[in-house]
Formats: sequence, structure tokens, C-alpha cells
Amino acid sequence: MTYDKEKYIALINDALETYLYSVADGQDIVLDAMRYSVRNGGKRVRPMLVLEFCRVCGGNVENALPFACAVEMIHTYSLIHDDLPCMDDDDMRRGKPSCHKQFGEAYALLAGDGLLTLAFETLTRAENIESSDIVRAVKALSSLSGIRGMIGGQVIDLLSEDGKPDDALLRRIDRLKTGALIQASVRLGCIAAGVTDETILRAADVYAESIGLAFQIVDDILDVTSSTEMLGKPVGSDEKNDKVTFVKLLGLEKCKALADELTQAAVQALNDLPGDTAFLADFANALAARKH
Amino acid sequence: MTYDKEKYIALINDALETYLYSVADGQDIVLDAMRYSVRNGGKRVRPMLVLEFCRVCGGNVENALPFACAVEMIHTYSLIHDDLPCMDDDDMRRGKPSCHKQFGEAYALLAGDGLLTLAFETLTRAENIESSDIVRAVKALSSLSGIRGMIGGQVIDLLSEDGKPDDALLRRIDRLKTGALIQASVRLGCIAAGVTDETILRAADVYAESIGLAFQIVDDILDVTSSTEMLGKPVGSDEKNDKVTFVKLLGLEKCKALADELTQAAVQALNDLPGDTAFLADFANALAARKH
Repeated sequence: MTYDKEKYIALINDALETYLYSVADGQDIVLDAMRYSVRNGGKRVRPMLVLEFCRVCGGNVENALPFACAVEMIHTYSLIHDDLPCMDDDDMRRGKPSCHKQFGEAYALLAGDGLLTLAFETLTRAENIESSDIVRAVKALSSLSGIRGMIGGQVIDLLSEDGKPDDALLRRIDRLKTGALIQASVRLGCIAAGVTDETILRAADVYAESIGLAFQIVDDILDVTSSTEMLGKPVGSDEKNDKVTFVKLLGLEKCKALADELTQAAVQALNDLPGDTAFLADFANALAARKH
Repeated sequence: MTYDKEKYIALINDALETYLYSVADGQDIVLDAMRYSVRNGGKRVRPMLVLEFCRVCGGNVENALPFACAVEMIHTYSLIHDDLPCMDDDDMRRGKPSCHKQFGEAYALLAGDGLLTLAFETLTRAENIESSDIVRAVKALSSLSGIRGMIGGQVIDLLSEDGKPDDALLRRIDRLKTGALIQASVRLGCIAAGVTDETILRAADVYAESIGLAFQIVDDILDVTSSTEMLGKPVGSDEKNDKVTFVKLLGLEKCKALADELTQAAVQALNDLPGDTAFLADFANALAARKH
């Protein structure tokens, strides 16, 4: 069986609908809000990484779908809560009203809580995966998305607003805020394939860390160089919010060079993985070259 | 080894500190907010039920501590988010400023998210418990605290504000909002003891459902008959918020009779449990007779 991006995205979207409909005896308005935000998804980068790492490591892609969807649910909840007025106060998300603009703050809050909780329920729906590996997945996803991981990154981000740019701080924010969930994705893919080999797990980590950082740097570049139509969100928002960015810190040219360097490091790390890694190499290159 | 309430509470509080300190390399302000709310805990009803059901079913109480603490973290996160301005907008919680009054809305939001996430990480820290039972625990806690459970109850609660009292609706709100997490507690206690016997699990469910409903009815009674000092929160808040309550629906006397009836049903269900259930019978009676 071969997979390409379109095939992965179709599998992921179908599975997400299944897991979201299966809780339909819950309360409709919050379920609607959860579905609204999940359907207004982006490029499904994280779940695709789960599936492809599982495949490259010799696992069955279909078995990994609950893990892939769980990561996407965590990502989506974090965007819903991030957009709330007490956080970034963003009215738009990917060209549509953000969840709280559409459903009100209370339901957006609960939709985020609901997705966070459903993510862990979804992990337990994995079939043909050992219980001990499901427990490893719960541990990896909770620790990497918790206050030592993604949430920790949001906290430093809040604390650093109006602060002075600092390379180490920025790398730390990124490593946690964006990078932690990308690391969770590759880790869950390996776990779904039953991988315990430390060399493989370390290579997966290096790949994740490199593309995570490159992804954020490209985001910062696009916030300066792209247009609102291309991005589906207002450009210049970093400037408006007085956020510390890599572009402010290093300048555009150095940022582009750094993104390239990180992409090469990611591709290099793939040598330690067992299967055909052409997809993952292309993936890293495409993330760095994206225009929106 | 014998246990009483004080011994249980000491064990639970010690374990909570351990699990909260173990994430100390996260960001301090959110960790402070998480600790503040967990330490301002109530009677530790839920974690105590986890431990005692584990003991009654022949399990080792110490092994069940991660499960007990996970339930308390879920309970605490739900209170933090419930108190937020976009929800109940409560400034006080158990006689102290609520989390967002103390730390600000953004950090209270993240502290709730952090506790929710940490609850699942804590489940995976269980030792001497089979992986398959940890997976059962993740499944039970996530489904009972999600949109089919506790969150679902909060949604109906929001939807029913300013609505007309209706016995079926109230029972449904309660079954989900308060009852679901009490059910999760007894279920996790049974799972920690490795119970798979359906008769025992059903008896545990009946006990949980009965004391959960009785607990809420007594809450409604106290909101009318107690004083702000006794409760540590303003009395009459249900009236102020125009909330549907059992007292409004049935009157005080009928509520007291119903609470007694439910308590008897809970005690009756204990006959199907294997061990000495005197503690659980006293517990049910004390919940019904409490004055705050």
C-alpha cells in the first residue's frame, strides 16, 4: 500500500468524523463547536507525521489512526483556547470566525476541554496495538502537550509579550509551543509501530525538533512577507502584538538560511530510520518552502 | 492496614504534591496556579472513593494513588474553568479568591488545561497495575469527564439557565455534571483492584449514582438553609443566578426525603461488594447529613 498526502488527509478526515460523531449523544452545541474547529483544519501536518512515521517504522497505518486523530484534537483545542479573548483574542482562524466568535466564549471553552479530553479517549480506541504501547502513547502525548511541553510554551509566550528579543528564549518558546506537539506526533507514530529502539526514537526526535523550529521560523517570515489573502489571517499580527520573532531578532536573510539549515538537519536524521524516507524528506522541504 | 478519612486525606494530599512538584521544570506561574487550586481542595471525596473502592475490592491502596489524584485533578480543573467570567463568573471558591481572581484569566485557563492534561499523565504513573487496566482507567476517566459525561452536564446546565424547572432535566444535569465524576471515582477504584466482575461494577455504579444525586440535592438544600460562613461561598447563589434546583422543583421537605431514600439505595448496593463496606456506608450517610 502506498500513501501520498491526499490519501493521508482523506484517511485522517474520515477518522476524525468517526471519532467526533461517536460522541453524538453528548450535547450538540459543544459537539458542533468541536466539529467546526476540527473541520476548519489546516494541512493535517501532525496526524500525517504520526501515520508516516508508523509506516516508515514498519507499522500498519490504519492502526495508527486513533493516535493521529488524538494529536490533531490536542492541536485544535490549543488553537481554540489560544484564540479566546483572555489569550490572543483572535477573531479569525484560517479565514473563518474563530470558535468563540461563532459559538460564544463559554461553549468555545468547553469545546476545547472536550477535545482535550476526547484526545485521550481516542488513544484508547486503538486496535491491534499492545496495551503497554497505548500507555506509552498516553504518557508521551500528555507530557509533551502539558506544562512541560506545549502549555509551557504558551506560558513563556505570554510572559515574553512586550519583552526584548532573545534567541535562546525564542528557541525555547518554539521548542515547547510548536515543537512539543510535532515531537509527540513522530513519537506516537513510532509507538504505533511498536518501536523501542533508542536510535530510531532519537532520530525521530531530531527530525521533529528541526522541522518544528523551521516551521516556526517560516511562520515568522510569512507574517512579514505574505499577504492576508495568502495566509487566511492578518499579516503583521506579530508586529501589532509586539511579539518577539525570529525575523526581528535575526533579520529576514539569516532566518531563511537558518530554516534551510534546519531542514537539512531533519533530512540527515532520516538516515537512522528503517524504511523508505522519501516522503518525510519531501515533507520537510515542502514545509520550509511553503508560501502560506 | 486500616484506613480512616484522615489517613486517606493525608495520603492523597502527599501524593498530589508529589505529582505537582514533579512537573516543576514547567512554567512556575501556571504551576503555582495549579497548586493553589489543588491545595484549596475540599473534602477529597472523589479520590477517597477511588482508594476505598480499591481496598474493598481487595486491591492495594497505595497503588491506586495515581488514579485517585487524577480524578481530583479533573475535578479541580473543572472548578477553575467553571469559575471563569465566561462561565459562572465566581470570584470566590471555598473562602478564597478563585483561580482567575488570583492569577488572571489567561493563567487560570492554562492552569485548568494543565491539570486536565496532567490527570492523564498521572494515570500512567501507576505502578503494579497491568497496562490493560491503565488503559481501562484512561478510557473510563476520559469518557466520564468528557462531553458525554461531566462536560455534557455543564453544557445542559448552561442551556438550562433561566429555564423552567423540570425533574428529568435536573436529574440528567446532575447525573452528568456531578455524578459522572463520582462514577469515574468508584470505577477507577475497582479497576485499580483489577475487578472485571460485572456484578461488582454494577453495584459500584448504583452506589455512585445514588450518592452523586443525593450530594447534589443536599447542595441545593444547603444553598437555601445554610450560611455563607458555613459554606465558604455565598448562599442563595442559585436563586441569584435563576438556576433550576431540586428545592425549587420539589420543595425542601421532599428533597430531604429523596436524599434519604437515595442514601439507603447506596447502602443497599454495597451488599454486592466483596469486602468490608462499613466505611462506604458511613460515607454515604455523612454526605447526606453534612452541613456544609
